[in-house]
Amino acid sequence: MASLIRRSLVIGLAVLAFASARQALAQTDPLPSWNDGAAKASIMTFVAQVTRDGGPDFVAPAERIAVFDNDGTLWCEQPIYFQFAFGLDSVKSMAATHPEWRQQQPFKAFLAGDKDTLAAQGEKGLLTLVAAAHSGMTTEAYATSVADWLGKASHPRFRRPYNELVYQPMVELLTYLRANGFKTFIVSGGGVEFMRVWAEKAYGIPPEQVVGSSGVTQFRIGADGRPVLMKLAKVEFIDDGPGKPSGINRFIGRRPIFAFGNSDGDQQMLQWTAAGPGARFLGIVHHTDAAREYAYDRQSKIGKLDKAWDEAVQRGWTVVDMAKDWKTVFAFERGSTGPSQ
Amino acid sequence: MASLIRRSLVIGLAVLAFASARQALAQTDPLPSWNDGAAKASIMTFVAQVTRDGGPDFVAPAERIAVFDNDGTLWCEQPIYFQFAFGLDSVKSMAATHPEWRQQQPFKAFLAGDKDTLAAQGEKGLLTLVAAAHSGMTTEAYATSVADWLGKASHPRFRRPYNELVYQPMVELLTYLRANGFKTFIVSGGGVEFMRVWAEKAYGIPPEQVVGSSGVTQFRIGADGRPVLMKLAKVEFIDDGPGKPSGINRFIGRRPIFAFGNSDGDQQMLQWTAAGPGARFLGIVHHTDAAREYAYDRQSKIGKLDKAWDEAVQRGWTVVDMAKDWKTVFAFERGSTGPSQ
Repeated sequence: MASLIRRSLVIGLAVLAFASARQALAQTDPLPSWNDGAAKASIMTFVAQVTRDGGPDFVAPAERIAVFDNDGTLWCEQPIYFQFAFGLDSVKSMAATHPEWRQQQPFKAFLAGDKDTLAAQGEKGLLTLVAAAHSGMTTEAYATSVADWLGKASHPRFRRPYNELVYQPMVELLTYLRANGFKTFIVSGGGVEFMRVWAEKAYGIPPEQVVGSSGVTQFRIGADGRPVLMKLAKVEFIDDGPGKPSGINRFIGRRPIFAFGNSDGDQQMLQWTAAGPGARFLGIVHHTDAAREYAYDRQSKIGKLDKAWDEAVQRGWTVVDMAKDWKTVFAFERGSTGPSQ
Repeated sequence: MASLIRRSLVIGLAVLAFASARQALAQTDPLPSWNDGAAKASIMTFVAQVTRDGGPDFVAPAERIAVFDNDGTLWCEQPIYFQFAFGLDSVKSMAATHPEWRQQQPFKAFLAGDKDTLAAQGEKGLLTLVAAAHSGMTTEAYATSVADWLGKASHPRFRRPYNELVYQPMVELLTYLRANGFKTFIVSGGGVEFMRVWAEKAYGIPPEQVVGSSGVTQFRIGADGRPVLMKLAKVEFIDDGPGKPSGINRFIGRRPIFAFGNSDGDQQMLQWTAAGPGARFLGIVHHTDAAREYAYDRQSKIGKLDKAWDEAVQRGWTVVDMAKDWKTVFAFERGSTGPSQ
């Protein structure tokens, strides 16, 4: 018993130290990369509102589900979705073992650098290329190839590994929400197996909280008796647009109270989140910063923001103006003179 | 500062009380409904092994993923899967508003009690009935109908609500695993939306940790401008047999280290779990208790245990003999003289 009391006193002292540290922390800004303004205030007001025990808008921790689009919301999506860049790099490196591609579209056009023919095939051509590169292998081999690519590929403008192009203000927001009892999920049109390789390190979001598009996988017992999952060239689920509420329903099974997107592909996710009872937060990242990142919206082929923007304005959702609201865009800005153009 | 010290001393005392309570708890059996024997010992040995910090088999908490089949593993599945019972009850109660069913198979046979004709249609007939009953409604209406049914339906043998027919030893096992840092998931052939309605209360497993079969849902904006998800009569994913490793890969994205099933439909999930590196636990519930529950295995139409049993014996997996290993099967046994027959 004496040792128990001693131990409890030691713990008591630790608690004292912890309480002081906590008080100090409470006085620091949880969102230092956000400029003070309406967007930041709307986030902090909402979090205070739903976490105030006994308050009229209190939400139990289990129901504090926050969902985030990935491309253009948590990391950069220009000049092409990074997963496409990965697919195209894979096709190039696999071309030597696929001589038939030299005679077969859209591979022929892509390998010959024939942009006009490739463009004529539209998005379908691009998808065909990427699907060819990432099927017929096990899920383990695919995860390894994603990690290998991230280790050597570099963004054409920023000359950095793609997974360094995550938005520092959003990383802070994710951390802030989790510190307030939220469970944070990615709900992205991107491939679920692509994102899981790097999402935990980049965002602190574990694999089981990543919802995305997927291809069919097939269970097989290999020649060595070891079971594998083979990736087939067959789409299983597209987690985009109206698919996002379906994905949320299927993977999470609760309606989020907090949703952040950046394009028309997120509109239904925002509508679905907004339609629940009680306090709700709906946010949109508006890319307004050609100097530090990119500026695009209604006319963009990638990350088009048109109808969702109109709805956001009409319904009073939070629209983040990247140029004005973000003090820092990428963490690497702090230690450098900015990206090369 | 004085108030901070006072507060920390109060917390210190609370910690003292907590430490004593914890020590007392550590001396009680975490699995009181399990008889002492090889099955119980294999579970407790494994948990000690993977949670001993610095030990050769230590597994970080984030990787402590445990997956459980539901029907026949966590709750009873006889005389028919409970979800089928629900589907058939729904068809009966909907028959008045579907006069066309009186002329249309398999509805006609079912409504007329014509078991021979119905049996001749096989499982497909049954699936058609259930799909008809549970599509063409919103996900919210469906969840309400599940809850309503559970509130009034009763099991034909035990005369209890279906969601009371959960196995007490498995509920204790789930709690024990979570207390040791495991994240517990259901991976079931049953419908994901059916299970989520009652799984959290029954097992302490939240909606986002339930993996199951699903139908396609479609996002629509209703006439009142409110978005809904409609359940379509189209299968999206069957989370059974070889589908279970695919479901685990897609929903969880990590390979489990602990898996429990009861039938051949769980064999691939067990193989997939077993194939990872390091310590693994593989368990099978063998239904050997006709007195307290049911006795069935190789010849059963529901929950057939044949190939998975052979593999379990060959590879030294833990096979739970319900009659011998479980002191209690259902929680209600304790307070009653047993179920009516």
